[in-house]
Amino acid sequence: MKGFKFAGIPAGIKKNKLKDLGLIFCEREASAAALFTKNKVVAAPVIIGKQTIKSGTIQAILVNSGNANCFTGKKGMEDALSCVKKLSLSLGIRENNILVSSTGVIGQPLPMEKFETGIPQVVEALSKEGLDDFAASILTTDLCTKIVERTGKIENIPFKITGIAKGSGMIRPDMATMLAFICIDVKISSGLLKRCLMTANEKSFSRISVDGDTSTNDTLFALANGASKVDIRDKESQKVFQKVLDEVCLELAKMIVRDGEGATKLIQINVKGARTKQDAFKVAETIAHSNLVKTAIYGEDPNWGRITAAAGRSGAQINPDTMALFFEDQALVKNGMWLGSEAEKKAAVLLKKKEIDITLDLNLGDESDHFIFCDFSENYVKINADYRS
Amino acid sequence: MKGFKFAGIPAGIKKNKLKDLGLIFCEREASAAALFTKNKVVAAPVIIGKQTIKSGTIQAILVNSGNANCFTGKKGMEDALSCVKKLSLSLGIRENNILVSSTGVIGQPLPMEKFETGIPQVVEALSKEGLDDFAASILTTDLCTKIVERTGKIENIPFKITGIAKGSGMIRPDMATMLAFICIDVKISSGLLKRCLMTANEKSFSRISVDGDTSTNDTLFALANGASKVDIRDKESQKVFQKVLDEVCLELAKMIVRDGEGATKLIQINVKGARTKQDAFKVAETIAHSNLVKTAIYGEDPNWGRITAAAGRSGAQINPDTMALFFEDQALVKNGMWLGSEAEKKAAVLLKKKEIDITLDLNLGDESDHFIFCDFSENYVKINADYRS
Repeated sequence: MKGFKFAGIPAGIKKNKLKDLGLIFCEREASAAALFTKNKVVAAPVIIGKQTIKSGTIQAILVNSGNANCFTGKKGMEDALSCVKKLSLSLGIRENNILVSSTGVIGQPLPMEKFETGIPQVVEALSKEGLDDFAASILTTDLCTKIVERTGKIENIPFKITGIAKGSGMIRPDMATMLAFICIDVKISSGLLKRCLMTANEKSFSRISVDGDTSTNDTLFALANGASKVDIRDKESQKVFQKVLDEVCLELAKMIVRDGEGATKLIQINVKGARTKQDAFKVAETIAHSNLVKTAIYGEDPNWGRITAAAGRSGAQINPDTMALFFEDQALVKNGMWLGSEAEKKAAVLLKKKEIDITLDLNLGDESDHFIFCDFSENYVKINADYRS
Repeated sequence: MKGFKFAGIPAGIKKNKLKDLGLIFCEREASAAALFTKNKVVAAPVIIGKQTIKSGTIQAILVNSGNANCFTGKKGMEDALSCVKKLSLSLGIRENNILVSSTGVIGQPLPMEKFETGIPQVVEALSKEGLDDFAASILTTDLCTKIVERTGKIENIPFKITGIAKGSGMIRPDMATMLAFICIDVKISSGLLKRCLMTANEKSFSRISVDGDTSTNDTLFALANGASKVDIRDKESQKVFQKVLDEVCLELAKMIVRDGEGATKLIQINVKGARTKQDAFKVAETIAHSNLVKTAIYGEDPNWGRITAAAGRSGAQINPDTMALFFEDQALVKNGMWLGSEAEKKAAVLLKKKEIDITLDLNLGDESDHFIFCDFSENYVKINADYRS
């Protein structure tokens, strides 16, 4: 990707010797925007990042996995700032052009001696081909790296967006997801970049859930370095750019759900016919977070009673007698009536697929919304009962 | 219990030949009150019960397990009313003195032929000693019956309260729990009985959670037949009565959590020092419903970072720097700072207990609240992936 370099190395922050320190470097200052978690318990790098991003230009992002640097008080802030200083010296760039980001266990101090030796090493490792190493270095309970590349064309000049994300548990993004980094080669103001990022986020990271727990470290970063010479200024170019950015964010968000802790299936719940947009959101969100719905889907049981019961407790205006429910195109409920065991058997066959769409039509109005979530298996429990041991 | 008879028989509604049809009968009309689920998808017996209870007097409650008679449309209403009629004929009492209640799978029609033969049999089986049979007949995924008996004295005359409940999954009562029946031998108006029941409910069934899913059939019933000659009229007698009623409801609520699907531990989260009562409730509720907190406790891991992160996403006003967290008397966090690995090891030892109190002090005000919940094991997933197969 023109103008960007990446690196990821094992610095000894994780116990298992896997890569745990990553770096994104822009050869020149990039327009930058970021969306941060709405959790009120936030990590030190989030507090610092919210300040740093205000300038709208960034040249490097340092990321560590294995330690969230959250609930670490004054020491955590000092440690994060000390990382910024070290990286500034190693790269020879200004401190206020550097963002730091951490993910991992909450509440333990950063092992600063590992950063002391690791930072010069990760700078040394920077290369045009370092993308896979970077994507690996930011993982925690993730089973796979998450990279999406898309290209577009504006006035016949090609541009490119590369997104990298991590996230598998503690996923109910309330603004952004665990960590996602979007590298872009168009020229765009940081203000417009932020608006485009918010639009893309609203349809992607803000509509996924693995387990309903919002992280303390969620951040979605975007860097645009202008290397493609494509300039996003008018409505037309913005529309093309937004479309590609939306695709990258949505695909990354889906990758997080597919790799959800213990997940075996990806489900999109579409809610239609709601009176208000908020009602549609509430119903979709409640269904996506119901452990009973998620375990039934894991068991490949089209237990529609749990879906309608979740809609009923969502707080939205609903009427059981007008509801219709579909697994893909297969209707299970119409006008509030169950369509019988034959329809259910067909739905059960559809549930054997890895990815499935479920649609609940409230038949009360014209508003709709959706949520993308995963099922819930014994492995989620195993992963999270043993996480720190 | 003076003036009450109970029965529970296998009527063939469940596939497994276990008891599934229960009856409570008062020899004379009792003052009655009931609290119903706030879920907007509600079962036919809930719709009917809300009407019937308005008279304030009830003489019999018929309960079946194995089928919730919910999302069954007009047919479900007709079936429930037909059960009322049959029971009225069998018992020789007025239809509007009868409540019906159902629990089990959502969305399938009641097998009416089983009720045809079962209702006369369950009437036949009524006896003073039928309490255990009744308690068994209302169970679904419960592993044990739930009966609590307490006595009190007012002006030296003894009175008694017997409570019976069922519930193990789909437990996040929003008004009342799955099903609970409180039999009382004092004389009390139905209006006052309802107020007392709401007070007791607020501290018991409304503060428990197994999995965050509110049932479509939740109902808390109370019947007071006056057989003890104790009359609840003045403030003094009401206070004594309320205390005993509170104890019965709280103990039943705890029994439901202890028998939560897959549960191995009962946890009470106490939130103190909140600015508002609502903030205290939000924080307690969010922690009690966090799958990450629940799986960590199952793993006997005092992962306090997940508890504080849940508080952070609760929507309540909190400040990480003023928080203190205790496992029983063992402090883990004070003034927003982790107290180190020794403190954590001691907390881990406390977590080996079957029941544990966790206290989060926000140190921002004087309001407090609590929630009682269970941990989250692989067995919850197994039970709910296979429930209907």
